[in-house]
Amino acid sequence: MRAAVMRNRALMVADISDPQPGSGEVLVKTLACGICGSDLHALKHADQFVENSRRSGNPLVMDLSRDVVMGHEFCAEIVDHGPQTTRALPAGTRVCSRPMLMRPTGPQSIGYSNDNPGGYAQYMRLSEGLLLPVPNGLATDHAALTEPMAVGVHAVAKARLQPDDAPLVIGCGPVGLAVIAALRLHGIRPIVAADFSIRRRELAVQLGADVVVDPAQGAPWKSWRDAAVYRDASRAPALPPWIAGPAVRPAVVFECVGVPGVLDELMAASPRGTRIVVVGVCMEPDTIHPMLGISKELNLQFVLGYTPDEFAATLGHIAAGEIPVTPLITGHVGLDGVAQAFADLGSPERHAKILVHP
Amino acid sequence: MRAAVMRNRALMVADISDPQPGSGEVLVKTLACGICGSDLHALKHADQFVENSRRSGNPLVMDLSRDVVMGHEFCAEIVDHGPQTTRALPAGTRVCSRPMLMRPTGPQSIGYSNDNPGGYAQYMRLSEGLLLPVPNGLATDHAALTEPMAVGVHAVAKARLQPDDAPLVIGCGPVGLAVIAALRLHGIRPIVAADFSIRRRELAVQLGADVVVDPAQGAPWKSWRDAAVYRDASRAPALPPWIAGPAVRPAVVFECVGVPGVLDELMAASPRGTRIVVVGVCMEPDTIHPMLGISKELNLQFVLGYTPDEFAATLGHIAAGEIPVTPLITGHVGLDGVAQAFADLGSPERHAKILVHP
Repeated sequence: MRAAVMRNRALMVADISDPQPGSGEVLVKTLACGICGSDLHALKHADQFVENSRRSGNPLVMDLSRDVVMGHEFCAEIVDHGPQTTRALPAGTRVCSRPMLMRPTGPQSIGYSNDNPGGYAQYMRLSEGLLLPVPNGLATDHAALTEPMAVGVHAVAKARLQPDDAPLVIGCGPVGLAVIAALRLHGIRPIVAADFSIRRRELAVQLGADVVVDPAQGAPWKSWRDAAVYRDASRAPALPPWIAGPAVRPAVVFECVGVPGVLDELMAASPRGTRIVVVGVCMEPDTIHPMLGISKELNLQFVLGYTPDEFAATLGHIAAGEIPVTPLITGHVGLDGVAQAFADLGSPERHAKILVHP
Repeated sequence: MRAAVMRNRALMVADISDPQPGSGEVLVKTLACGICGSDLHALKHADQFVENSRRSGNPLVMDLSRDVVMGHEFCAEIVDHGPQTTRALPAGTRVCSRPMLMRPTGPQSIGYSNDNPGGYAQYMRLSEGLLLPVPNGLATDHAALTEPMAVGVHAVAKARLQPDDAPLVIGCGPVGLAVIAALRLHGIRPIVAADFSIRRRELAVQLGADVVVDPAQGAPWKSWRDAAVYRDASRAPALPPWIAGPAVRPAVVFECVGVPGVLDELMAASPRGTRIVVVGVCMEPDTIHPMLGISKELNLQFVLGYTPDEFAATLGHIAAGEIPVTPLITGHVGLDGVAQAFADLGSPERHAKILVHP
């Protein structure tokens, strides 16, 4: 089959052998697969990606001297069933799946693996037990956004939001936009979001942000503070006389940039007691000043992925029109266009999500 | 009065003017004052201390070009009452207080201030409203340990421990020992604690640790894992077949070292989902690999100080014999001995807490 392969730390199109579905697995044809920022990171910082995985105790990390087919945000169509399958979903069914294979020896990654090709290839194998049929009437391209949107749903769940919490989203790339959509689903308002890109701020509004800020024009925390004032004075805590009012709600900030230095800036600017949810995937070393966290008793919750229930619920939310994914899709490419698409995604003004149609 | 003064980033004994109690304040004679690791840090990293305070938004940080009298772990005796005091506690009463002055313009630090001398001086002024009388029969030296022990009580409270959580304490200096004592009070067992110093490991056992580890001899997480196995199998979650058992309880680790590099090491070694409570005060920049936190969904809770209730409760616990503070006190000095005591505290084998008797 044809695939866009990471080989020698570069992307190229190559013919590779077709995957063979093992026990309990199905062969699927990839219909659409989104390009994730993590894939851009993994290509650019491949050695750090592997090193971090090893330090975290993951023995199954990819070997960079061998081919890797990335792509973990996919919608696919069942082509064939392997041995020991129930065939509950017949060939031709469109499906989504978490990007992993459930093997007797443990789960394996799809997309960051030498052995399990991801969605930048014509075919994949998936575990039958993880398949979710795409509801009738839901566009394939929209279904392919289940995975990145589930990241936002999970991040918001891990934030353990209380009714008075006031959210701030830093960075409105695909991760930040997913968080905004999930906050809107959660019903917590107003949602304040910041990004240097006007295009991304427009997308943030389309996904549900109430207030958007250009950090080049003004401090995001200033806008947040204006928006986070208690509307219902009876809920506001009494302020000591030396603190200039009005009282503001507790801050929960979602770090959706994933670039060194942002976390420390947030720690310096955050009000006392802020909870920082780290959703952006920073694969490089980062420097913080712990004293900033200590003096304000900050909490940092790092998050990754989603639970099976969150993933399935996200597909349902998209099908029900509760997450407006249409504005996110800004481009389509074939396998020949993947390398260029990786380059194009460096510009926030042009693109949010590019889908690969192998 | 005589005081051990931080002047030009060094400690020296000097005669300075006596403090005058303002409205609602009392003049006290310092009876005993513990030397805190934060004071050692503040002397060694004075510029970073000030810079971090400024970045955190604290406008009242000390000016290093002027004298500072440190010392915030004190027991004192009321000498005189200022204007607008109730005199509920008469002169001669021994008292503890949180190290702050409550002024109409807001709280001010005692001990990290140019204007409010701390306990390395013969006299201090304190806010009458914060005074806690020392219970009859409680030794002055023991009462002076209220402040550092309250730090442990607060850290354990902020950890929001659940019944199945299994704690690990990294570093058994005064902060780690306070955490161990508070964990013991909390009733959560077994308590695993690690320190390179044999003397500190002995103290850890005296304060309530069940298992102590020398990291030079074996990984603390290995000892923790052995201790954290569910004794009651009915409480243990079912493990998937590819994970070698037995099931271990959720990890809550208390970082009580406060030296750059320790946090990242902990993030690398921690099991998935670990909550890391950062109690050690690292005043230098520190490098972490956020990907370690992300891949294991770690939570970092930075903590500082204590609430008024926690401070008062800690004094009560010490008076009731529920926190065994006697082993902590390893030395006494007068004001002339403060500079040497700062130097001596660099050796973990000789000292835990040195008390200054001005």
